Amino acid sequence: MAHHPEPASSSLLASATSKKEWYGLLLESATGLCDGEPNHIANCANLSSLFYQAYLEQANPSRINWFGFYLVDRTKTNELVLGPFQGKVACIRIPFGKGVCGTACSEMKTQVVPDVHAFPGHIACDSVSESEVVVPVVDRQGRLVGVLDVDSPLKNNFDEEDVSALEALAEIVGKASEWP
Amino acid sequence: MAHHPEPASSSLLASATSKKEWYGLLLESATGLCDGEPNHIANCANLSSLFYQAYLEQANPSRINWFGFYLVDRTKTNELVLGPFQGKVACIRIPFGKGVCGTACSEMKTQVVPDVHAFPGHIACDSVSESEVVVPVVDRQGRLVGVLDVDSPLKNNFDEEDVSALEALAEIVGKASEWP
Repeated sequence: MAHHPEPASSSLLASATSKKEWYGLLLESATGLCDGEPNHIANCANLSSLFYQAYLEQANPSRINWFGFYLVDRTKTNELVLGPFQGKVACIRIPFGKGVCGTACSEMKTQVVPDVHAFPGHIACDSVSESEVVVPVVDRQGRLVGVLDVDSPLKNNFDEEDVSALEALAEIVGKASEWP
Repeated sequence: MAHHPEPASSSLLASATSKKEWYGLLLESATGLCDGEPNHIANCANLSSLFYQAYLEQANPSRINWFGFYLVDRTKTNELVLGPFQGKVACIRIPFGKGVCGTACSEMKTQVVPDVHAFPGHIACDSVSESEVVVPVVDRQGRLVGVLDVDSPLKNNFDEEDVSALEALAEIVGKASEWP
């Protein structure tokens, strides 16, 4: 077994009495999973799993259909390349400035999109996606290293509490990992 | 939208009249997804999705509960680190020679384990796993770069046809990608 704490169990998460508490438990698990592990791929992979599987257990069908990371490709200029994720097969490359992910990079700002079909230049990777949040991920030096991308099959799925939690997660992985 | 062909659709996969045809369609999609894309993380991430989601659509509950990659960590000696995957949170690091993944590396040979509880030193990442296949992934020069790891919640889940298809997938991603 690995040198990391057990993630928050289904029963522990199910015991949360508010969305705030639920996210609190998840973020505590996220911090634990990355503790002492600098590998950014392993961290992005496990955190995608932690959150995607938690949403899946919370509701069926899940209110999240894609959860993962795009990473800045250092071999290219201003381009994201697909990183670890859970959900259906996705677009591989996204230039900065294009779609919701690319806009998060060019503006260095979280994008909350209640209706992706109304977003100019939206890149439809999974046709069931209706709303989306994209959070820039920066490293300890404040350098952009990727984005956290979360899609929902429901319009207007993300409220302020969701967005705050996703921003906290992006900060955890950004600071915990070493990035190329 | 991305510069890659659409993966085999659910309806196309559902039309397959044999396991051989089903895997044929999946492997064709796998080759298409990696076509012209050297990034090993993007390829491992999309191929994990392609296969995991296909198993999920084929049967509910799925006969596969974990599908993904461990990668050789070039900053360490003889150690695997977690790569892209789909399924529940997993162990982060596995030394060569330990568990099913580590044994695939030290023996450079596919491991087919009908009952993981009978495998000496098995590393239980997800307690529901009952059988497992691990295939070494080598690059174009024949160098070991990681393993493809597939877990099932059913004992004795993998027959020769499954193993051949997973070996073909490991060869596709190994040859298509550039590896550190």
